[in-house]
Amino acid sequence: MRTSLVAVLASAVLAVTANASPPVEDHELHESLLYLDTHLDVPLHFSRPGWNIMERHSYWNDLSQVDYPRMVQGGLDGGFWVVFTEQGALTPQAYASARDHALRRSLQIREMVARNSQQFELAFTADDAARIARTGRRVVYQSIENGYPVGTDLTLLKTFYDMGVRMFGVVHILNNQLADSSTDKKGGQWGGLSPLGKELVAEANRLGMVLDASHASDDTFDQMVALSRTPIVLSHTGLKAIQDYPRNIDDERLKKLAASGGVIQLAALHSFYRKLPSIPERDALLDEYVKNIERFTGPEAAAWVTKIREVEDKHGFPRADFDDLIRAIQHVVKLVGIDHVGLGIDWDGGGGLEGFQDIAALPKVTAALRKEGYSPEDIAKVAGGNVLRVLRRAESYAKTRAGTGSP
Amino acid sequence: MRTSLVAVLASAVLAVTANASPPVEDHELHESLLYLDTHLDVPLHFSRPGWNIMERHSYWNDLSQVDYPRMVQGGLDGGFWVVFTEQGALTPQAYASARDHALRRSLQIREMVARNSQQFELAFTADDAARIARTGRRVVYQSIENGYPVGTDLTLLKTFYDMGVRMFGVVHILNNQLADSSTDKKGGQWGGLSPLGKELVAEANRLGMVLDASHASDDTFDQMVALSRTPIVLSHTGLKAIQDYPRNIDDERLKKLAASGGVIQLAALHSFYRKLPSIPERDALLDEYVKNIERFTGPEAAAWVTKIREVEDKHGFPRADFDDLIRAIQHVVKLVGIDHVGLGIDWDGGGGLEGFQDIAALPKVTAALRKEGYSPEDIAKVAGGNVLRVLRRAESYAKTRAGTGSP
Repeated sequence: MRTSLVAVLASAVLAVTANASPPVEDHELHESLLYLDTHLDVPLHFSRPGWNIMERHSYWNDLSQVDYPRMVQGGLDGGFWVVFTEQGALTPQAYASARDHALRRSLQIREMVARNSQQFELAFTADDAARIARTGRRVVYQSIENGYPVGTDLTLLKTFYDMGVRMFGVVHILNNQLADSSTDKKGGQWGGLSPLGKELVAEANRLGMVLDASHASDDTFDQMVALSRTPIVLSHTGLKAIQDYPRNIDDERLKKLAASGGVIQLAALHSFYRKLPSIPERDALLDEYVKNIERFTGPEAAAWVTKIREVEDKHGFPRADFDDLIRAIQHVVKLVGIDHVGLGIDWDGGGGLEGFQDIAALPKVTAALRKEGYSPEDIAKVAGGNVLRVLRRAESYAKTRAGTGSP
Repeated sequence: MRTSLVAVLASAVLAVTANASPPVEDHELHESLLYLDTHLDVPLHFSRPGWNIMERHSYWNDLSQVDYPRMVQGGLDGGFWVVFTEQGALTPQAYASARDHALRRSLQIREMVARNSQQFELAFTADDAARIARTGRRVVYQSIENGYPVGTDLTLLKTFYDMGVRMFGVVHILNNQLADSSTDKKGGQWGGLSPLGKELVAEANRLGMVLDASHASDDTFDQMVALSRTPIVLSHTGLKAIQDYPRNIDDERLKKLAASGGVIQLAALHSFYRKLPSIPERDALLDEYVKNIERFTGPEAAAWVTKIREVEDKHGFPRADFDDLIRAIQHVVKLVGIDHVGLGIDWDGGGGLEGFQDIAALPKVTAALRKEGYSPEDIAKVAGGNVLRVLRRAESYAKTRAGTGSP
């Protein structure tokens, strides 16, 4: 968000009226919008020796999709930077390790910001985003992916809140102590949220953290919507209407999400849009990547990308493309309206489609939505307005409840 | 530590032989030494709005005794930056708050380093100090003052270790869940270390953290020396031989400390050297300072300093001076030798004597010790060599025990 929003909106609206949108106006509109992605897995790279966010990387050389130069190029103002913790054992010792891992990750995010304080700034309130973007800096909210690190000690929510976490995803790909996952092969074990998970919902509400049901099972999602006193988000999720995949949400639940004021931030992973064949050779390569991300650099990373593309091509891997993402946005808009959709592409966490491989491609979203006839005001909602509305609701609820002692 | 140590030592040794030590050689010697202070309370200022360690402050205007310009001027290479937590209730809720406070303080220390990475660097091993000093950066080890924030969860020691904490002071001015303090008016309640405190000693040993018995009661001290598998420190303590004060250590215990390989880092507070009269007016001013440190700046701080000096002068407050510190060093050297003494002045935590009011005065130590006939090698031990030896012992013990499963 750089130039005067009002001025650009005015010219853009004129352009819409005239049914002509030359690329230069798309560009100006795009730059004028506050764009936030709600699931930036970029911090995974912070443990890679020598990896510096201020340098330009390339997915094809480095497996990275977001850095400062490309954020500037792509007009991404910032978003929710993820504190991800892999699911481990449900034991006191493993909880302590997970807690330390998550604290360290949050610390790394904050150190990145401290090191580059002319380019990045920590954000704590919904109002911070526009204020920070006006200075030209990038917005750094933090979000938890997988509530596992709080173990059985819900006071840690406050710890993470103090560190700057404003969005809390309860579960990842396996069931944990808080909730059932959508992808655990054992199926649900709690029937949704665990008793502790239900307490956690109340505590997140009390603090003013937005709850995130991405990765949650349907039962977990239903209970989160029902129990949370403020709207929840799906920070990086796809649509069952497009692909019957466990991580995707069905239309009935989307309506429920919208009715409660929430928002789905659409992810862009091939598996969310296509039925993928089982390719053990490809799975092994992905596994190799996940296990080696901290040391994969330069030629090694480039060789890996080449290899996985070759394997995919050999097996006729059905890649989704950028248009699929735009179709998904339109599906949500048609179903529940423009106020309930945004973007959480899953950059650096598996996101990226043909023609949409890193954050530098973000201006395509504005251009495509303009082409589909969306107004600048509507595009602004998708870009970041909707999720900020949800964050603002969480904040004001917490303020209202502060000191009342009730949840 | 800037110029070649060997070259300067050679010329300095010649100077000693000739029994002539012109100030310029003192200066060169001082600059050549690796000076570490083991109790830098500077992080207390990190919560003061607008306070910037890169700017030059003055005690008389700002109540601050250490910042980057004065560290450079005073030739302080760095030291142990304190994560201090005030003692509160021994309840789960208060423990959680204390934990969060300590994590936040450690985070602030790390953010300060990240923001000023050309001037400061985090240190994790004993070898890091010389390596960092050679680059011209200042050395940032972290230490815990008051083990209260770990509550009853000793896994938090690892959390703090991971954050960079390498020295752990179990207790502050009041008894806590780990140990008896030397200054709790209730007297001892555990007879030294609590059962949990004894476990903590083993855990600190296992991790390779140096244990710190400053503020501990005599019984606690005795048990720490007896139980710890590696030498302990008194990071900022005075001498009972000089002043009978609860925070000071007696000669018999000093001998025990030395026999076990430990080190006393001498603090420089008036109360450690003089019997102070009770001046309620002064106590009230100190209380005001402690309560308002985060907002005391500029004229307000200067007015406070003027006022407390006036009150002290009115009541004939007996201030100790720089020579008292040198006498204390000599007392320890005579009693237990040069290998067991160093400096933990308590800058920004109440330290500072007449003629020794901020870190810019540090070169006086080198000059005074030279004048007393100490060799450069001996001064190097006091400056930082002794405490690094203790840290190295803690490290090598942890390495030896790693994986053996025994404490």
